[in-house]
Amino acid sequence: MPYSPAEFRGLTFHDAAARFSTGDDTPRAYLERCLAAIALREGEVKAWACLNEKGAREAADAATKRYQAGSPLSPIDGLPIGIKDLLETQDMPTEMGCEAYRGNFPKRDNAAVWALRQAGAIILGKTVTTELGGTHPGPTTNPFNAAHTPGGSSSGSAAAVATGMVPACIGTQVGGSIVRPASYCGNVALKPTQGAINRGERQATSQSTHGVHANCVEDMWQVVIEIAKRAGGDPGCMALFGSPNPPLAQRPLVLGVMETEGWALLSAADIVAFDAILDQLRAAGVIVLRRTDQPMLECFEGAIAGCSMLGNAITAWENHWNLRNLVAQHPDGVSFRTKSVIATAESLGPDGYRALVLQRQDIRAKHAALAPVVDALIAPASPGPAPNIEQDQPGKPVARPTGNSVFNVPSSVLGAPVVNVPLTAVGGLPMGIQILGQPHTDARCAAYARWMLETLKPVVV
Amino acid sequence: MPYSPAEFRGLTFHDAAARFSTGDDTPRAYLERCLAAIALREGEVKAWACLNEKGAREAADAATKRYQAGSPLSPIDGLPIGIKDLLETQDMPTEMGCEAYRGNFPKRDNAAVWALRQAGAIILGKTVTTELGGTHPGPTTNPFNAAHTPGGSSSGSAAAVATGMVPACIGTQVGGSIVRPASYCGNVALKPTQGAINRGERQATSQSTHGVHANCVEDMWQVVIEIAKRAGGDPGCMALFGSPNPPLAQRPLVLGVMETEGWALLSAADIVAFDAILDQLRAAGVIVLRRTDQPMLECFEGAIAGCSMLGNAITAWENHWNLRNLVAQHPDGVSFRTKSVIATAESLGPDGYRALVLQRQDIRAKHAALAPVVDALIAPASPGPAPNIEQDQPGKPVARPTGNSVFNVPSSVLGAPVVNVPLTAVGGLPMGIQILGQPHTDARCAAYARWMLETLKPVVV
Repeated sequence: MPYSPAEFRGLTFHDAAARFSTGDDTPRAYLERCLAAIALREGEVKAWACLNEKGAREAADAATKRYQAGSPLSPIDGLPIGIKDLLETQDMPTEMGCEAYRGNFPKRDNAAVWALRQAGAIILGKTVTTELGGTHPGPTTNPFNAAHTPGGSSSGSAAAVATGMVPACIGTQVGGSIVRPASYCGNVALKPTQGAINRGERQATSQSTHGVHANCVEDMWQVVIEIAKRAGGDPGCMALFGSPNPPLAQRPLVLGVMETEGWALLSAADIVAFDAILDQLRAAGVIVLRRTDQPMLECFEGAIAGCSMLGNAITAWENHWNLRNLVAQHPDGVSFRTKSVIATAESLGPDGYRALVLQRQDIRAKHAALAPVVDALIAPASPGPAPNIEQDQPGKPVARPTGNSVFNVPSSVLGAPVVNVPLTAVGGLPMGIQILGQPHTDARCAAYARWMLETLKPVVV
Repeated sequence: MPYSPAEFRGLTFHDAAARFSTGDDTPRAYLERCLAAIALREGEVKAWACLNEKGAREAADAATKRYQAGSPLSPIDGLPIGIKDLLETQDMPTEMGCEAYRGNFPKRDNAAVWALRQAGAIILGKTVTTELGGTHPGPTTNPFNAAHTPGGSSSGSAAAVATGMVPACIGTQVGGSIVRPASYCGNVALKPTQGAINRGERQATSQSTHGVHANCVEDMWQVVIEIAKRAGGDPGCMALFGSPNPPLAQRPLVLGVMETEGWALLSAADIVAFDAILDQLRAAGVIVLRRTDQPMLECFEGAIAGCSMLGNAITAWENHWNLRNLVAQHPDGVSFRTKSVIATAESLGPDGYRALVLQRQDIRAKHAALAPVVDALIAPASPGPAPNIEQDQPGKPVARPTGNSVFNVPSSVLGAPVVNVPLTAVGGLPMGIQILGQPHTDARCAAYARWMLETLKPVVV
């Protein structure tokens, strides 16, 4: 069944929660519907690394009682959620899609998981990640065509949300790991400002974030703000700014188109779909600037041109001692893709790394300079829809098994917030549009996305 | 036997390493002398949480062979070192001085430990820390008078170096946890620039660092630079700057005296000792500025006046989800002192935390403004020598069992490098002088410390 953004109705929570208070629905019944969706689709989609049905039912019953007593813990009390299997959870193993972590069970909660439990959310299971959040894929398939990748590294989170198994999942992004799978799976998703959500034990890299996959802006925002309220941001960073309830829709005044190095990879159909959105924006009164309209945009494009290599090299260096440790202990427990990261790092050294950090500061300055020029940037969220799943052949490994992150790395390098807006379909599969703002404008990006979803017509090419 | 900085001869390594190459000494023989010192003093001093004598002897034999073959891995190949028991080590448990972590054994190396092994250093054991690096003390006693505290939280690291059990140890500081114990135990020690040494898995707080305790500037520098060379800095941060060999002695041109809120706590004898150092500096041609001489220094003192509360509150917030998790799992495994930190954090919330981070930025700006005014700041490293060990009484806990960090928190809040210079003794116990520089001037601070140690006469009051 091909995907159509006009017909797709994703599972949402905020509307159900309103019925919990009147007694017309309960968190336990909601959870049972999620478990039924899992029973129906999991065999093909393979979104979950681990499920805790017993614990989830207990938590749902407790939430049901709180609503009955008129005292839910928060607007997400009773919300079943999937946690990407990179984050530690006290009641489930954390295997990170990596053989070397098989059976790893530290029995403690990541800061975001801890915050979600405080807010009454139901930690239903751990979602499949690519190996260690890198490029080596897990078993998950695209919910709209099992021959295609769901994207990665937050593969299971994106797919579980798209199939109505849960209304929200936690993903993480260091390159393109939230926004690309959200694009491929038609999620509404937020990759927040760098540092705005406390990553807990996952502080090893300087451009990674936790984010939220959902089926509407309301759920996405409510989940992320409930985490920020309780667990704050990373050490030394400002926690997510924004209101305690979802931002209302807001029309942007000026959007700038971000092309990136990925523009050359778009098909004619991809461009038709994206242009149809730009046309609607202009028709609604939004000023849309292209790089040819505005020299500062062109200057910014020049700065981000080498972004993918820069971002990947920075992350490789930051992970290398950890990876070296892991490979030393489990020589056969780590894929060739992950091992190749170590070589990248060691050719860099601390001097090379310092130079890349300086270069990143320069890119961020070029982005900051755009603040008075455009309210946000708009771009395709991936170079087209999800590619086919291919198997590695001896001596010929697949270059990018979960797709190309070229449209996503800039936001990671910039530390900037991004929202994926599922408004287009190409060839029967989702292809997202991303809204990228200045750091700490997460709420504004969400408000623009909400306005787009409420105002623009979905485009099918 | 009272301590005298003029007579004290601490165990050093760089001179021994020179003899390894000629065959007049070996890493194995050096290690055996360390083990003999441990056998002699450990019963009273209690510096070690865990020792790996077998692994150390194997590593020393391997180092011995490398020197015999003329191919040591680095200038610290064969250096026996103690690792504060907050850092993970693949061959020893990491219990963090905390009942809740009893038996914790993650079997992986912290980034610094990994780097030290690459450089050929011998990871001899884990040194005692206060509980989780906080204020609740461990069993270690002061090497120069067992009735006194060694300081904390790097209690065992400071004491092991002072007793010649090892020539160097890794400590960590979030408030005053390297420099205060170094002051109380007469170590040469570096608390580096924030972020300049990769903390590996220990990234939970924004103002903590790994540092080195040693008995001379040469060993201190060589250990820290060998780590930085291999493991780099924290994610997003510049690794330690400086030469691959210890900096030569350098006379500062201008030093500014930093008084802090701690000045009022100094005894007449403490001030006599400190003034005697200032007099010698002036006699050697160094310009010494007091806050009354220079309005910018007075302005800086005003900015750091509330530093202790600010720094402790920032750290409390950053640790709180982790502590809440820990207490939930081990209600009786955490001391009342550590539990009280949670209450501090929760009264703050993310808004309160953001305000403190802004305040910290302001303090850092006031410090940066001093760069053209003074080459570095000089101050007592603690309010006098080590206080007596006191036992908690029912309902009357000891306020600061490992001493007062009032002279140390500013460097942590500033993210600035500090070297402790053991040049004074008061009442038969060490009391250090600290040299505090601008961020990334670690090597310059070490050069000033080396000059002071080579030029000034130790002072005994």
